[in-house]
Amino acid sequence: MGPGPSDVNPRVLSAMARPTIGHLDPEFIRLMDEIKSLLQFAFQTKNKLTIPVSAPGSAGMEICFVNLVEAGDKVVICQNGVFGMRMADNVRRLGGQVILVEDEWGRAVSPQKLEDTLGEHPDTKIVAFVHAETSTGVRSDAKTLCAIAKKNGCMTIVDCVTSLGGCDVNLDEWEVDAAYSGTQKCLSCAPGISPVSFSDRAVEVIKSRETPVSSWFMDLNLVMGYWGEGQTRAYHHTAPVNALYGLHEALLVLSNEGLEASWARHEKNHMALKAGAKALGLSFIVPEAERLPQLNAITIPDGVDEATIRRELLTQFNLEIGAGLGVLAGKVWRIGLMGYASNPRNVLLCITALEAVLSQYNAHINKGEAIEAVRQAYSS
Amino acid sequence: MGPGPSDVNPRVLSAMARPTIGHLDPEFIRLMDEIKSLLQFAFQTKNKLTIPVSAPGSAGMEICFVNLVEAGDKVVICQNGVFGMRMADNVRRLGGQVILVEDEWGRAVSPQKLEDTLGEHPDTKIVAFVHAETSTGVRSDAKTLCAIAKKNGCMTIVDCVTSLGGCDVNLDEWEVDAAYSGTQKCLSCAPGISPVSFSDRAVEVIKSRETPVSSWFMDLNLVMGYWGEGQTRAYHHTAPVNALYGLHEALLVLSNEGLEASWARHEKNHMALKAGAKALGLSFIVPEAERLPQLNAITIPDGVDEATIRRELLTQFNLEIGAGLGVLAGKVWRIGLMGYASNPRNVLLCITALEAVLSQYNAHINKGEAIEAVRQAYSS
Repeated sequence: MGPGPSDVNPRVLSAMARPTIGHLDPEFIRLMDEIKSLLQFAFQTKNKLTIPVSAPGSAGMEICFVNLVEAGDKVVICQNGVFGMRMADNVRRLGGQVILVEDEWGRAVSPQKLEDTLGEHPDTKIVAFVHAETSTGVRSDAKTLCAIAKKNGCMTIVDCVTSLGGCDVNLDEWEVDAAYSGTQKCLSCAPGISPVSFSDRAVEVIKSRETPVSSWFMDLNLVMGYWGEGQTRAYHHTAPVNALYGLHEALLVLSNEGLEASWARHEKNHMALKAGAKALGLSFIVPEAERLPQLNAITIPDGVDEATIRRELLTQFNLEIGAGLGVLAGKVWRIGLMGYASNPRNVLLCITALEAVLSQYNAHINKGEAIEAVRQAYSS
Repeated sequence: MGPGPSDVNPRVLSAMARPTIGHLDPEFIRLMDEIKSLLQFAFQTKNKLTIPVSAPGSAGMEICFVNLVEAGDKVVICQNGVFGMRMADNVRRLGGQVILVEDEWGRAVSPQKLEDTLGEHPDTKIVAFVHAETSTGVRSDAKTLCAIAKKNGCMTIVDCVTSLGGCDVNLDEWEVDAAYSGTQKCLSCAPGISPVSFSDRAVEVIKSRETPVSSWFMDLNLVMGYWGEGQTRAYHHTAPVNALYGLHEALLVLSNEGLEASWARHEKNHMALKAGAKALGLSFIVPEAERLPQLNAITIPDGVDEATIRRELLTQFNLEIGAGLGVLAGKVWRIGLMGYASNPRNVLLCITALEAVLSQYNAHINKGEAIEAVRQAYSS
């Protein structure tokens, strides 16, 4: 129950153990087509270039920047956590000019600040932000931020690593130009693959670059040849066949459940965890309206050593929760309720284990109260 | 039985289906340490920076070039097939200067040509070549080529994608500075991960670069923090946990068998395939002394349509063999005998199936003769 990888659905684990077939086999190409259309469903988009990148989410981030940014381009990065910082690092390495819109870690990106910044920098090419900041548990208002970018003539790159499958992601409604996600969060698939999606406008920009993409592996002009239409695919690299079996199965699980049902389940389990945490005297660092149900950043109570608690949870309850990252290191725990792992059994385990471990340090905890709060949250 | 992915050992498939644990879990860090030491065994090296890259072999290639090459650097690329071409493309994208040493596709890299080229270009920083060209089935003399590079004060980057585990790869004896491989060839693991190894000298060069590495995902200065020593690992990206379970198991299989025993098995099955192919009137495009046992490039006989044969093998015998790539497209088939798939059952299947399919077009094939040749090869 850390910030990912989440528990992988046993159906997905079994799928990954199927015999490996060739990456140019007609049956595999059929599987690729199904994955593309299932990803379109998950991202709520008709974007033709919607594919899984053969590398983790951080490579998915890079494939967006390395293809869309050329040296000298001005890119506004909204930074309110670790992954916004990483975006800025990507742009600088590509010779792009970074303009930061900074918000406090634990708060959503401010639409007003973005609007003001774009007013000061009318020559901005791209606006990039993280929809669901895994380092803080914050959800930013993607629809509003994309509308501001569009109004100012900018393209958008949106990090959907932790949001996809866990809360509303709607690329077409938001008119996103490039988005990337990961398999190891709310899709409950093994880590290692990054679903990405590019609008037709983004594809045009990539095809008409003035300079070649600095990376061969990530050059979408080449990748498109392999993931393109029809039975003839140009060999690019050897696809991670078994990992894609897993992603295919994970996407089938999501489509069987339905997007809205999945979001509602994430919300329900989050509310139950919140009730239990409150009864234990624990608070969230993120204001209620900006919280992600799938990633719960909880303030560490006074007088406890956060690493000791995590170690005791791991050794005594076989339960992993996440530490804080960056400026939140030592200040929060991050509890994931993602995909298959967002279920009442996990909420009960987590609250029970936290109660047992924290009771050693806090005499004010009334045993049993937190579980009763969880039970009531599920009954309501 | 194409040029990879090879059949994955069932032990590896099962390993990949184990429950996913956190990529910062102490047990996972133990697994990472075991993988590093098993990779050192496979590469025959003491290089501390010997790790699996979380992406396919073509990303392993790029991680070598993107970290070692800076704009303006002169790099000699020995090109005798598709993957040498790709190396050159990598260098050009990084602003490096490419000097080509060209040999015919289907022939080994000429040591004399390399020596002559380095004489003409004494300011060369790096020599790069492909040990085992998957596009042609050629093995070049890595030991000799590395010695020439070293004598001329150059670093070396060696592609071991198809050689590792199938024939002798000895990084320390050859004094290689950077090598990369793939999991999907003679390690018989699922595709998607690239083992790499860097000498201490290469690490020094990477640490003292004048310009930052253009890729965040591939910057070894960051990757080293995650795959480094001790229990404290800096978070970089989420490791592909299940794929690494598979690689760990595949390396255990290799170490159980032993390197020499694995190479001998590849050789024996190659000799049996060769005997059967000869009886069918098929010839190899690569001279005997330069052939890879694990990748057999066979000339397509006159009067047959190569794609039809491959389709018939696939639909009638559930057997995939590879087409030619680049200048060899339409001229050869590529038959892999790699790792777990290098076994008598596959040799017999392949020769039996080829006999059945080719007999339709060639009245001179004496039925049963090829299988008898295979049987004799195994008996000798």
